[in-house]
Amino acid sequence: MRFERVAIVGVGLIGGSFALALKAAGVCAHVVGVGRGAANLESARRLGVIDSIATDPAQAAGCDLVMVATPVAQFERVLSALAPGLRAGSLVTDGGSTKRDVVAAARKALGDKVAQFVPGHPIAGAEKSGAAAAKADLFRDRRVILTPLAENAPADVARIEAAWQACGARVFRMDPETHDEVLAAVSHLPHLLAYALVKEFADRGNAAQLFGNSAGGLRDFTRLASSHPEMWRDICVANRDKLAAELGAFEDRLRAIRPLLEAGDGAALEKLFADARGVREKWLQGGFE
Amino acid sequence: MRFERVAIVGVGLIGGSFALALKAAGVCAHVVGVGRGAANLESARRLGVIDSIATDPAQAAGCDLVMVATPVAQFERVLSALAPGLRAGSLVTDGGSTKRDVVAAARKALGDKVAQFVPGHPIAGAEKSGAAAAKADLFRDRRVILTPLAENAPADVARIEAAWQACGARVFRMDPETHDEVLAAVSHLPHLLAYALVKEFADRGNAAQLFGNSAGGLRDFTRLASSHPEMWRDICVANRDKLAAELGAFEDRLRAIRPLLEAGDGAALEKLFADARGVREKWLQGGFE
Repeated sequence: MRFERVAIVGVGLIGGSFALALKAAGVCAHVVGVGRGAANLESARRLGVIDSIATDPAQAAGCDLVMVATPVAQFERVLSALAPGLRAGSLVTDGGSTKRDVVAAARKALGDKVAQFVPGHPIAGAEKSGAAAAKADLFRDRRVILTPLAENAPADVARIEAAWQACGARVFRMDPETHDEVLAAVSHLPHLLAYALVKEFADRGNAAQLFGNSAGGLRDFTRLASSHPEMWRDICVANRDKLAAELGAFEDRLRAIRPLLEAGDGAALEKLFADARGVREKWLQGGFE
Repeated sequence: MRFERVAIVGVGLIGGSFALALKAAGVCAHVVGVGRGAANLESARRLGVIDSIATDPAQAAGCDLVMVATPVAQFERVLSALAPGLRAGSLVTDGGSTKRDVVAAARKALGDKVAQFVPGHPIAGAEKSGAAAAKADLFRDRRVILTPLAENAPADVARIEAAWQACGARVFRMDPETHDEVLAAVSHLPHLLAYALVKEFADRGNAAQLFGNSAGGLRDFTRLASSHPEMWRDICVANRDKLAAELGAFEDRLRAIRPLLEAGDGAALEKLFADARGVREKWLQGGFE
């Protein structure tokens, strides 16, 4: 498995790290970076993340692999620009955090070339964004979820899988609906809650007193609130049905906890805390792998 | 400022780190560890956190400084045991995360010796607990909030302040009511939310799928759910009125966000996220110090 020419549309943390990882694995000769931000692309070229720069996704059509790693609301535009020139044998994949909307955009934009699109999502990231945050080992030992289409040739899915494995990732498959449900819970909801809590304190008259007297606990709890606002806007809008359901479930959970608190029911609170701690320790020790 | 004999009642992360920090600063000759867990105390002695072991808080009465760092529900019992033998000139302080209940327990247990008790709370911690987690630099550049009593002699408050400064901490003063309000927001609520989210996922039939497909985001968001259940039970019960108010405010915030999500209002969501990110960056850069 080797690619002569890889295009990265959206050279941020995910796209840039994918490029670096493929290069580090020696499976890619040349990387074209495609994007809107000239400064970010220049920085990416200077850092060796990409080898050349293009501004129009259409210029990526001649590459044998195209990774779309823009915010998900841009996928239809990007893939529409790419479609006319896309050669048979070229593959397109993505790093989008939602999959139902990405698949719908691909069907609409790529038409009868949709079989060349293998959707994917690396379960890795950080609150940092931009090409400067990219690193070759971002995906090492991380999960990547592919949500293949019925139209995909098994050999094409296998090539994308092999590309991710070259990046050090463990590849799993899921249908887009299940993917979006699972990620709404374990990723999208925590992001929304982190943003909400910071905004709640920020809007108060004593915001300086609150943040000034906080420590590492609040800092880690709200780390996700430093994530890229446009990217997370797109994710929340694309996955709003599943995310609203998760938000509702969490609100129900809080409503169930409130009476324990108001009654000062120490035994019930301690059981809740001990249960949660036990499950978290099991998870950290690899008990859910 | 120097203490010949310091007693630590509750040799966990906070008490143990206080002992190590005082020793490192060279302001304390001998540390007596007082606690219920023989294994933990033996481990603390082996690690050099304490120099001798006592099992009854009454045995701490002869020390010139007593730090009470047990879960807050034990304060009345500990201080009652300490009171009869407490010498004039000895000082008692604490590391409890709530202050109204601690002050009430101290008044009840110490009676006319309450002037010797200077309440405090180091804004530092970790999800780790026990003497083995203690470290001499835990309080370096961290805030410590003292909530002095009207009965305290200014010179006694100054001695406790100097002890914390010897540990590298920055000392602030606050009244107990304000302390409990601020900490309910920036510490107790995030702990409750972290426990609640882990429990929410743990209770589902697909818990393994959820935790298995999560990454660093959920791990950091839920770090506080690995905190000590008994300690956090006591904090939540002691501060339940303020914490319930914070929980209510957060529920209101989520209720206000829900319609934005359901309507797919990308502009409003992006503004929310960008506002939160901006405030968090300002905070991390020391803008609220």
